[in-house]
Amino acid sequence: MTSSATLDLSLQLLRQPSVTPIDHSCQNIMGDRLEKIGFNIESMRFEDVDNLWARKGTEAPVLCFAGHTDVVPTGSLDDWNSDPFVPEIRDGKLYGRGSADMKTALAAMVVASERFVAKHPNHKGSIAFLITSDEEGPSINGTVKVVEALEARNEKMTWCLVGEPSSTNQLGDIVKNGRRGSLNANLTVKGKQGHVAYPHLAINPIHTVSKALAELCDTVWDNGNEYFPATSFQISNINAGTGATNVVPGTMNVLFNFRYSTEVTAEELKARTLEILDRHNVDYDISWTLSGLPFLTPVGELVNAAKNAIRNVTGIETELSTSGGTSDGRFIAPTGAQVLELGVLNASIHQIDEHVNVADLEPLAEIYEQILEGLLAN
Amino acid sequence: MTSSATLDLSLQLLRQPSVTPIDHSCQNIMGDRLEKIGFNIESMRFEDVDNLWARKGTEAPVLCFAGHTDVVPTGSLDDWNSDPFVPEIRDGKLYGRGSADMKTALAAMVVASERFVAKHPNHKGSIAFLITSDEEGPSINGTVKVVEALEARNEKMTWCLVGEPSSTNQLGDIVKNGRRGSLNANLTVKGKQGHVAYPHLAINPIHTVSKALAELCDTVWDNGNEYFPATSFQISNINAGTGATNVVPGTMNVLFNFRYSTEVTAEELKARTLEILDRHNVDYDISWTLSGLPFLTPVGELVNAAKNAIRNVTGIETELSTSGGTSDGRFIAPTGAQVLELGVLNASIHQIDEHVNVADLEPLAEIYEQILEGLLAN
Repeated sequence: MTSSATLDLSLQLLRQPSVTPIDHSCQNIMGDRLEKIGFNIESMRFEDVDNLWARKGTEAPVLCFAGHTDVVPTGSLDDWNSDPFVPEIRDGKLYGRGSADMKTALAAMVVASERFVAKHPNHKGSIAFLITSDEEGPSINGTVKVVEALEARNEKMTWCLVGEPSSTNQLGDIVKNGRRGSLNANLTVKGKQGHVAYPHLAINPIHTVSKALAELCDTVWDNGNEYFPATSFQISNINAGTGATNVVPGTMNVLFNFRYSTEVTAEELKARTLEILDRHNVDYDISWTLSGLPFLTPVGELVNAAKNAIRNVTGIETELSTSGGTSDGRFIAPTGAQVLELGVLNASIHQIDEHVNVADLEPLAEIYEQILEGLLAN
Repeated sequence: MTSSATLDLSLQLLRQPSVTPIDHSCQNIMGDRLEKIGFNIESMRFEDVDNLWARKGTEAPVLCFAGHTDVVPTGSLDDWNSDPFVPEIRDGKLYGRGSADMKTALAAMVVASERFVAKHPNHKGSIAFLITSDEEGPSINGTVKVVEALEARNEKMTWCLVGEPSSTNQLGDIVKNGRRGSLNANLTVKGKQGHVAYPHLAINPIHTVSKALAELCDTVWDNGNEYFPATSFQISNINAGTGATNVVPGTMNVLFNFRYSTEVTAEELKARTLEILDRHNVDYDISWTLSGLPFLTPVGELVNAAKNAIRNVTGIETELSTSGGTSDGRFIAPTGAQVLELGVLNASIHQIDEHVNVADLEPLAEIYEQILEGLLAN
């Protein structure tokens, strides 16, 4: 029966204990299936990470399915009700590590492609797969390296559908059409240690930075926009002092983070921060870490194709969201591709007894197939 | 010869290893000498602390010599050039633990009293000694308890001369006619832990208190007065955060200290601090510890007698100061007594090879004797 195709491939992938960065032949399984329907298969191994770039067709536009075969560690096996790498269906739910994040989506992508190609052997443009085994880990030798390799040969994606579990309460209720940027700072305020009884001989860094910190906390960095909430500034850690109550500390350390919208850039945030510190005559060292650029796919061909497909298959009007943590979409969006994340429910990801509704697998494959129909059918 | 009297008694006291709270018979040595010239001797032991209250005469005014027989620990004996409890003179300096802080002053007080009583057997008022063996320690069962006992029986001191080493560059250059108060606060700012990506679900205590802290750092608490510098506010410790850069901390801890003049009270400082925190809508717990009330002895009989004595003996115009840490004067001043600290050079106190100039011992005894002359001679 049709409903078993996505489930069968899901089971096959879930049996591979592919904890980051081990792919454990998942990409071979997918590649073999895709090769049979005309994809050109390219393995790109960087260091200890396996990556798959598969493409059917040479023309633009390119619809790329993106995702990862690696899963997070299982935690204590004793805590699981069934072996995390021996997938099991109980009460309509498929249990196993990676069932939600995101091997069932990989299976649905392959099955959707097979069906679409069967119906439209001479479809428009190209279908591609960008699959890594290092999304849950350091993410250094995964998607980012593949994107660099593609960019180097000027190979572009037009649309990218990332199979991350975006749904919250029911399949397709939310798709992620962007993510905020994340910028971290490590600020060391310099003073001069001394005795509290002789403050004129000391420089208290807590005091010298106090007004600047108050202003940073109070600053409106932007007002967000249609897709993003306003940029937020949060101090996560602040530390100074020896523990003794009579010693003025010599230095103070402050860690803070910006989650920022597309209304500002990381460079602007840095410049505005430094201006505030300098204006208050703070003596400091600061180092910055850009964890992720913000990206946004406004309503357009890809979003509309996804909305229509979700409405057709589930009857739901999907909601666009830019909330949540980072994903590999941050590496793809800078190439100019429209990027959308659409997958199963995320309630159990990274948890014990991770699972997905079996009844959601075929609908997900159908949604993916309809998106292919919407964008690449002749 | 005269010059040996103070030195001899100093040597006798320095041979006693009287590390806090052990008096090691120092008070007996002093008491025996004082009893011989008509003092009434009263031992007041509280817990493990020996205290001596000795008084000659029953009338007011009362000039009390105050001090302590206990010394701080020696540290490693290997670091000393001679045994810290076998006093030794080298190059005009007397070495030994307690030589500067403050057994030579105790000896000078006793010798000065002996000489004064010999000259003025029918002097005015009373001479007293308030000696403890717990000034360098917790200071719980020492001077404060003796003062309480005296207060309970309505026994008052008019003037109190504390033998702490007040001199900086030469004997008598500085006397301490007061000390600032010291008020400590432990502030816990309450927030709600959360993820930096979802700041609307968290309450960041660093942010909520930032304006209040900036205002506290910026506040002019008073302008000091003739004797005191302006009250100072210093944050000694500030801590919040789990170490993780993506977690908004749930609480923040701040320790701060006021060194305050006689222009404000501890209660006023507390009230003004709370007003600032409340006005900025900070959710907090706070606890206060009053380490010492400020005290001041303005120019008057005691200060003038000391100035004259120092000028006569050393040729120096002494300087009044309220700087430095706390002393037992803080326990005596609240009774209404005029309190002055006057002793040898403090450069080596609490250090390895603590020492005093031998040539300063007799002049110190002379200064004390002249103060007795100035205040109690008939």
